[in-house]
Amino acid sequence: MIPNQKDLIEAIGRVQERVHKTPVLKSRLLDDMTGSQVYLKCENFQKGGSYKIRGATNAIMRLSDEERARGVITHSSGNFGQALALAASNVGVAAYIVMPQNAPTVKKEAIKDYGAEVILCPSSLEGRETYTKTMIRQIGATFIHPSNDVSVILGQATVAVELMEQVPDLDCIICPVGGGGLAAGVSLVSRYLYQNCAVIGAEPLNADDAYRSLKAGRILPSINPDTVADGLRSQLGDKTFPILLECLDRIICVSESEIIASMRFIWERVKIIVEPSSAVTLAAIVKEPERFKNKKVGLIITGGNVSLDDLPFGKS
Amino acid sequence: MIPNQKDLIEAIGRVQERVHKTPVLKSRLLDDMTGSQVYLKCENFQKGGSYKIRGATNAIMRLSDEERARGVITHSSGNFGQALALAASNVGVAAYIVMPQNAPTVKKEAIKDYGAEVILCPSSLEGRETYTKTMIRQIGATFIHPSNDVSVILGQATVAVELMEQVPDLDCIICPVGGGGLAAGVSLVSRYLYQNCAVIGAEPLNADDAYRSLKAGRILPSINPDTVADGLRSQLGDKTFPILLECLDRIICVSESEIIASMRFIWERVKIIVEPSSAVTLAAIVKEPERFKNKKVGLIITGGNVSLDDLPFGKS
Repeated sequence: MIPNQKDLIEAIGRVQERVHKTPVLKSRLLDDMTGSQVYLKCENFQKGGSYKIRGATNAIMRLSDEERARGVITHSSGNFGQALALAASNVGVAAYIVMPQNAPTVKKEAIKDYGAEVILCPSSLEGRETYTKTMIRQIGATFIHPSNDVSVILGQATVAVELMEQVPDLDCIICPVGGGGLAAGVSLVSRYLYQNCAVIGAEPLNADDAYRSLKAGRILPSINPDTVADGLRSQLGDKTFPILLECLDRIICVSESEIIASMRFIWERVKIIVEPSSAVTLAAIVKEPERFKNKKVGLIITGGNVSLDDLPFGKS
Repeated sequence: MIPNQKDLIEAIGRVQERVHKTPVLKSRLLDDMTGSQVYLKCENFQKGGSYKIRGATNAIMRLSDEERARGVITHSSGNFGQALALAASNVGVAAYIVMPQNAPTVKKEAIKDYGAEVILCPSSLEGRETYTKTMIRQIGATFIHPSNDVSVILGQATVAVELMEQVPDLDCIICPVGGGGLAAGVSLVSRYLYQNCAVIGAEPLNADDAYRSLKAGRILPSINPDTVADGLRSQLGDKTFPILLECLDRIICVSESEIIASMRFIWERVKIIVEPSSAVTLAAIVKEPERFKNKKVGLIITGGNVSLDDLPFGKS
């Protein structure tokens, strides 16, 4: 059920030559504030503005010629939609992105700019699934789930491989947990390639379904998640859950005000634009500093796609 | 009157080992948008959040032991105050920063955090000068002007030396012009070390005193400058003016809406925090794209010190 080491190594070869090798930033202020040595893996500088291009690229490259000719489809109002559109356009594959009617215009336009077709659906879960299934039946496009897909998980894993090459002796990596695709991929890297590096998840308290699921030993739904970290509202699936259950060290949950304060610190002090979903990683260190004291800690800065007209500062 | 090549080379040795070597960022979106190859020299990641640490460091290192024992003083409500405080603290020299009473609390606190003494003065030009002179008389500290000082100019020059080492075949460098210390320093680097690299200034139309001064052949005052680029409100002086007159290729003036649009583009697409004063450089390319078409252009991203509670977006 859990992908093996060979799958992981093949994904690395496939993905690394098609995405940016993003920089790792250090900040003395960040080290002073946390008491740790913090390394920011800056996927906000990645193509499409987030790490999701890695999973999308791996998934598309694994398709047969026949599948590629029929295109790919996903439902996403966030970074995965953009990533799949871009990854598909890079290799001349058609992409169909199902989005809720009320998604921000700027997101719809970004996806169209990458050459993908946007399919608007009712903003309910049922509406989304019905529309996606209908499209799959009509055009025969291959569905690629934003997180609960082995190829996507293996693609996301490459961010940790790259980080470990850049900072070989990390004690641990903290990554945000939403659908769990990134956390599962990073956990596999620790398991197969860097056993001395622990992997810790960070999740909003207001969307703590992964924390609760791992504790309960079964997938619990994410019910009305209300968090500024809009990329982390989704729930685990049958592909991500068993990997996390077996390989993830633990999850630290953080409050909305902790997320916003950490986001603000990164913007003001490190001078980079990160989305709220990325800031949960720093918030986890601030929440449990003793756990990370004097350790070398890598944070996956997952993306920088935010609306400057709707910033959360002042709301904490 | 104009510093010589030997002065410049000595400054490089003095400054480079004491400041960060900041990264140079590229962005495909930026290249596509401008039709040029754009290299961002990211001094927003510099110690103290701006390039000003370079000039402050060079000025302090050139003082005699006796002068250092008596400390340094400047008037600045902006980046130079922070830079001088930090550079002084790095070598155990006392620093006194004269600031207007109505300066933002966050700026006063930042300077105190670096161990400097903040001296509040009336917010008029006269009040500032009287207070500064009184302090100089009382404590015997050495006055270091934020821009109109040969040591400061030579220190700022080192940012261009570093950039040329990182991207040796630049066709030109665009830098913001306020007091002119940076533009003068970069111009000297072109004159003495990289004659094939042109230097172009960028200035807000609403604070175009340098543009007018160079045209008139004499220093004209900056009267009630009203620009979002708050670092560029000051005027040229007797040290910066002759260097710019002789060595700067030209100045391009840009409007407030052009500055804000360029700042927004950098935040949204390049994902870094830059202050409005830095965005004038990109605005200059956007204003006169033909001049830079297919050229390799370096932009000095001077700093990233902005208040997240008072952003200019939506005001353009």
